[in-house]
Amino acid sequence: MNIYCLLFDDYETLDLMGPVEFLHRMPQARLHYFSRKGGLVHSRQGFSVMTESPATLSENGVLLVPGGQGTRTLADDSDFIRHLGVWIAQSRFILSVCTGSALVAATGCLDNRKATSNKRSFEWVRQVRRNVKWQPVARWVRDGKFYTSSGVSAGMDMTLGFIADMYGMDSAQNIALQTEYTWQYAPGHDDFAGYYGYGSEGSHD
Amino acid sequence: MNIYCLLFDDYETLDLMGPVEFLHRMPQARLHYFSRKGGLVHSRQGFSVMTESPATLSENGVLLVPGGQGTRTLADDSDFIRHLGVWIAQSRFILSVCTGSALVAATGCLDNRKATSNKRSFEWVRQVRRNVKWQPVARWVRDGKFYTSSGVSAGMDMTLGFIADMYGMDSAQNIALQTEYTWQYAPGHDDFAGYYGYGSEGSHD
Repeated sequence: MNIYCLLFDDYETLDLMGPVEFLHRMPQARLHYFSRKGGLVHSRQGFSVMTESPATLSENGVLLVPGGQGTRTLADDSDFIRHLGVWIAQSRFILSVCTGSALVAATGCLDNRKATSNKRSFEWVRQVRRNVKWQPVARWVRDGKFYTSSGVSAGMDMTLGFIADMYGMDSAQNIALQTEYTWQYAPGHDDFAGYYGYGSEGSHD
Repeated sequence: MNIYCLLFDDYETLDLMGPVEFLHRMPQARLHYFSRKGGLVHSRQGFSVMTESPATLSENGVLLVPGGQGTRTLADDSDFIRHLGVWIAQSRFILSVCTGSALVAATGCLDNRKATSNKRSFEWVRQVRRNVKWQPVARWVRDGKFYTSSGVSAGMDMTLGFIADMYGMDSAQNIALQTEYTWQYAPGHDDFAGYYGYGSEGSHD
C-alpha cells in the first residue's frame, strides 16, 4: 500500500509523525513524503524534511494531510487547493489530522459529509467551509473514504482506527503494543471537546 | 533553553518526534537537530531530516536521544559512544527514549543508576551495560540528570514528566490539553511490561 504524506511549511510535527509511526508498521506499507514543489520543507518545530514532488499519486493509495499553522495560509491558496483536490481524487483513502481537515474541506470534497478537526481551532475550520457537517465532539470521524481527526494526538488514535478497518482490530492492537501506545479506540469518545466549550452538539447524529 | 535532538540513521520516528512536539511548547525552548557528521539523516520510516554537526553543545542544555534499529550498531561504535559521552557531560539533562538508553548506558554514565528501556528489546539493552540498575517495570525513570523511558510512546509521557519537573504540573497538563494528548503521568505505572513477561521485578526499589 502506497501512503503519501503531504508536507508543507509550518506543518505540526506530531500530526504527521504520529500517524507515520503506525502506518509504517502496516503490511507492505510504502511511505512517500511529498510537497507541492518538492525539496526541503520546514516543520513548525524547526526541522527540515526532504520531499519529492510527484506528478500523480499511484492508484489505491492513502493520502495523509497534517495540520498546523501552515494551513492558515494554504486554505486560501487556490493553486494549492486545486492540486490537493486532484490528489484526493487519486486516493483510495484520505486521512487528515487537526486543521488538515480545513485543507481537505476547502477543496469541496467534504461538502455534506461529517468531519472533525482540532477543538482549539474549530471555529476557524468551520468558517473555511460551512457546507461540511462539522462534528465538534469526536476523536475522529470516518465518512466514506475520508478520515478526519481532532487535534494533534488524536491523529494517532485515528490511524490505528484506520488500520483496524483495513486489517482488523488485532493488527491495530498489536501495533499499539509494539509501540507501547495506549490507544483510545472509540472514535466518538472525546475527552477534550468539553475544555473548549463543546458539549454534545452535533455529535453522533 | 537549548534542546539538542540527536539524530542517526534508522532512528525511530516517534521516539524523537513525540518529545519534540512537547519540548517545543516549553517557554523559550530552542530546538537543534544534530548528528555526528551533520547533513541528511534517514529515519526508520524512510524520510530524511537535515541536521547540523555541532562541535560543542551550549551549557545548561537538554540532550534528547531517541531509540530505534540504528542503536544496534551504534552501541558498538566506539567513536560515536565517545562523542556521546562528551555531549552528555556538556548537558544539564539527558532524555532518552526506547533503546536510546542503550546508547547512553554504553558511555558508562548510567553505571549504578536506575534506568529503563523498551520492553521488547529489554534483554538486548541489559546486556549492552550490565552495571546499570535496569528497571523492567516503569513508564519512565529519573535518576539525577538522566531521564530514560520505555518504548516509543512512553517518551511522550516522560517528556511531559520532565516539563512538569521544570515548570510545574500545570504547564505539562496545559501542553497535554493543547495537543489533545491523554498523559499517563505516573512514571512507575507500566501497562506494557506484563505483555513482555516482566512482573514487579526490580520496580520501585
